[in-house]
Parts: sequence; structure tokens; C-alpha cells
Amino acid sequence: MNEPPLVTRDDITAAAQRIDAHVRTTPIIRMETGAFGIQAALVLKLESLQHTGSFKVRGAFNRMLSADVPPAGVIAASGGNHGVAVAYAAQRLGHVSEIFVPRTAASVKVERLRRYGARVTQVGERYADALLASQARARETGALEVHAFDQPEVVAGQGTLGREFQAQAPEVETLLVAVGGGGLIAGVASWTASEVRVVSVEPEAAPTLHAALQAGRPTTVPVAGVAVDALGASRVGEIAFAVARRHIERAVLVDDEAILAARRVLWDELRIATEPSGAAAFSALLSGAYRPREGERVGVVICGGNADPRTLA
Amino acid sequence: MNEPPLVTRDDITAAAQRIDAHVRTTPIIRMETGAFGIQAALVLKLESLQHTGSFKVRGAFNRMLSADVPPAGVIAASGGNHGVAVAYAAQRLGHVSEIFVPRTAASVKVERLRRYGARVTQVGERYADALLASQARARETGALEVHAFDQPEVVAGQGTLGREFQAQAPEVETLLVAVGGGGLIAGVASWTASEVRVVSVEPEAAPTLHAALQAGRPTTVPVAGVAVDALGASRVGEIAFAVARRHIERAVLVDDEAILAARRVLWDELRIATEPSGAAAFSALLSGAYRPREGERVGVVICGGNADPRTLA
Repeated sequence: MNEPPLVTRDDITAAAQRIDAHVRTTPIIRMETGAFGIQAALVLKLESLQHTGSFKVRGAFNRMLSADVPPAGVIAASGGNHGVAVAYAAQRLGHVSEIFVPRTAASVKVERLRRYGARVTQVGERYADALLASQARARETGALEVHAFDQPEVVAGQGTLGREFQAQAPEVETLLVAVGGGGLIAGVASWTASEVRVVSVEPEAAPTLHAALQAGRPTTVPVAGVAVDALGASRVGEIAFAVARRHIERAVLVDDEAILAARRVLWDELRIATEPSGAAAFSALLSGAYRPREGERVGVVICGGNADPRTLA
Repeated sequence: MNEPPLVTRDDITAAAQRIDAHVRTTPIIRMETGAFGIQAALVLKLESLQHTGSFKVRGAFNRMLSADVPPAGVIAASGGNHGVAVAYAAQRLGHVSEIFVPRTAASVKVERLRRYGARVTQVGERYADALLASQARARETGALEVHAFDQPEVVAGQGTLGREFQAQAPEVETLLVAVGGGGLIAGVASWTASEVRVVSVEPEAAPTLHAALQAGRPTTVPVAGVAVDALGASRVGEIAFAVARRHIERAVLVDDEAILAARRVLWDELRIATEPSGAAAFSALLSGAYRPREGERVGVVICGGNADPRTLA
């Protein structure tokens, strides 16, 4: 296996400049001491308020703005948020888009895809099925593939979140980031290098990075659980794996109950609407899967807000 | 009629120091140019993420921390958010609380009152009915009254929002603030004095400040509409009226349809959950009730997030 290309801080700074006009600087909120019974200094980054409700637009814009997009447009496979981000970015930039999603994708996300003008194909049960179908289709049409996590331009785009968060909250020592295919954490950890402790958080039911670190290489695992539509990549990206070995301090797992409890707390105590994946990183703190030392300055990325609001009631 | 006491910037700074340990610095989000089709530079303040989901805790804490609270505790009347804030603040400070609410109060708010340990009495159809009942009860028990808007300590507490917003977004020239009884706008405009153009936004169905400014004095108006549980004071406060005459640039009205449309946009485009009152100020921009000049730097207070999430679906 060849080493995948590294993403540098310069790549991330360039990405930030490239996508600046198209993405929001999402707010942070510093929590009061002892909030939620946790004796750490918590800072939440509300990336759920990003365009399309997740960080994914960062990578999507950076990929499209780094390439010549052919007349066939762009094509992507996605459990949902990535697809919506690609469709949105394509629409904003005047490209056509074609999105392949597994049948497990949340209906609220599929509706959004269509609203952004994408041609949508639902295929298979898992992300991996949709990816294979999209790759075959790309070979036919010549469309530019926008991978959900394993392309350097996508990783650099997601890394702009880490750059932005550090500028907003330079005091943060530890960052908790949820992992599906690993694009976000790869970008964030490529930015912070080892200056900040980056901790990955995955559902027990979809432990792709955790399993890869144990196996010493990306490995395919069964995926399920409440966050499967967003964190359900069955195999972590090569880039993410390479970055993780260098720059990720610890990989923790959380169970579905912990994710749903965290989601409930974010809604009840903060009126922050998240999808399960968006609450996963926070759930590591609430459940004790990650126990900060007293006073530790911990940043948490709230990475996705595409909830069906009825499920918050 | 005697002139009501003025609230000074020093009062507001003192309030900010007094309540600092108890309230959140809520985030702002700067919108991209042209967002929502509005050619202004918009900054939203997400006070809906405050403790208890609205700005009301600011005034509640300042009132309680400015007084000797008797063993009978505190008492308040409220369409909902103020009562929840008083109950929350009382619980945090170790006081008992008794809250009178009209029967129109949203059930989600009544449940919260009880969760914070308040004794709840539902009486009458309107805020004014609940207020009268609470005042009679206060005379019996000796509890400290925490008025929903017309006490200097409450106004000074709400004014800390204006102080905080100006520190976060000093570029803002114009501030849009929803008005019920006027406590928030009185506090904000007392802080900004006339350095910032403060525009009041009220539902057409509950135009208390608008009517008072037209009449030249606070006047009782019928109140109804989608935001009545939070903006349904039938008469603006004496303090708010006095401040409004000095420091409020313009009073605009929005209809219920505009409020609900704005609420929908905040959810769809930003994943910000608001109750109707929380979207009212923003609706003035979307509906054209307030038309900024091109490039005008407009701040909007998103003042309440206590939505039943099922209504966002």
C-alpha cells in the first residue's frame, strides 16, 4: 500500500481562502464551569449551523474549486450529508450533480438533495454500495467525483473547520471529533498536527477507525446503529488512517444510548438541534467514554444538525 | 404620571458583573452577503441558546441578586419564558418560586416550570390576568415580585444582552428587537442609547409599543396571534415606553404569516430552532417591514427558542 498524500497546513489555509465566500464561520459557545456536571472548560463549535446543516460543504466546495469541473458535472455517494453538501455546492457554482445514496438515508436528506437540483439514485443498503454504483456511473459520464472523505481536497476543506475553531478558541487543548469515514478528523488533525490532543469518537456500532487502529490498517467492519446514516462508512479512509496514526491521541467508542442522551441534552439545555452523528462527540463527555481532567479545555465539534425535528420532541 | 426611573449604562454594567456566573455569553453568527436575499450585513445573536431558552434569565438573575429574597421566595407572572427563567434562577440560587401563567401558556413551558421546582398556578386567558393574581398572592406571602419587564433591575439585566452583542459585533448600526412588554428593548436601548438605531418589532396582533407611541402613553390593546404566549403583554411597560420615546428609532409591525415564514427559514437554512417570538425580529427583514439600505450592518436578536420541535417539521 502506498502512503496516501498528506494534507498540509498550507493546503488547509489555501482551502480556507478558496471556500471563504461560500461557507459560514460557524459560532462557538463556551459553556459555564461545571455545565452538564463535567468539570472541564467546554467549548462547542456549532457546525450544525453550517450551510446544509453539516461541515460537509467545506470539503465539497474545496474539491470543486480545486478542479476543472466537466460539463457532466459532479458525482458523489453519500449516506446523506455529503450528498446534500455536494448538491448544494454544485448548485451554487452552476454545476449539475448526481448523488448516489443508500436506501438507509434519512428521507429529510433525500428531499434536500432534490431541492438542490441533484439527480438522486438510491441503491443498496450501505454507503459502500452507493459508492460503487457512483464510481461506475462516473466512468460512464466523466463527472468529477467528490469523495465523501478520502480525497486530499476534501480533507483539506474539512480541515478548515479545525483552523477556524482554533482561531476562535485558541485555549482548547483537546478536541473531540466524531468519525464516519474520517474526513473531518483527518482535516482537523492535519491542521492541529499534534499541538492539540485530537480524540476520535465513534459509535460502537460503526467503529471503523477504532478497528483500523487495532488492525494496523483500514479494515471493513459491519456498521449499524442510530448514527449509521452519517457515520456508517464501513471502512475508514486511507488518508484518515494515515493521519490518525500520526496525530490522533485516542479513539473512543460510545453506544447508541449515550448518543441519544447527548442529543437530548443538547436540545433540552441549549436548544441545539442535532442529528445523532452531530451529538456523538459530545456524548463521549457525557457518558464518560472520554473523561477530561478537572479544568481541561475541551473543544467539541457539533458536526451535523439535519434532524427530523419530530424526533426531538 | 411620574417619570419611571432610568436605567443607565452603569446599571447594565453592574448587572453584567452580577449575573456573569449564571448566564451564557450566547453566540452570534455573521451571515454571508446576500443571505436570504437581503442586501445587508446581518449578524444574528442566538439568545435562544441561553439558559431556559430565552434572554429572560438575565433580568431574573439581576433582580434576585439585587435584592434580599425573603423566605417566601420569589413570585412572578408570565406568558411562559419569564416564568421559566424565574423558576430556573430561583432554583439555582436556592429560593422557592411561585409562578402564575395564563392558560394560553405553551404546555412545553408549563412542564419546564415544574421541572425547575416552581409552584405553578394557571389563571385567566392573558398575561394581565396572571399578573393581577400574582400580585394579590405576593401581598399574602411577602414573596419578592419579579416583574416580566417593568422593573429597573429586570430591564438592566436584559440590557446586558445589548452590551454583550455590541462587544461581539461592534460594527452593528441597527438592531432589531422583538417587543412584548418591552423589557428587552428597554434594556438594549438603554445600553446603546442612540449610538445604534434600535428598531422595535411587534406582531400586528399584539402591537403594544406601537400603539403606545401613537397614543403618546402606554395603552391597553387587545393581543392575539402566533406569538401571543411570549409577546402578548397587552400594555407596554412604563420604563420601556420612556426609553422608547428617547432611543427607539422606529416601531414596525409584522403579521403572523411573516413570523412563521421567518421561523421556517431559520430552521431550514440555519438549523436554529425558535418559537414564533424568537423569529419576530428577523421576520421584519424577510418581510420587508424593515428595509435596510444596501450594506447596512444589521443585528437581529433571536430571543427565544422554546419551540415544540414537532412544529418545525
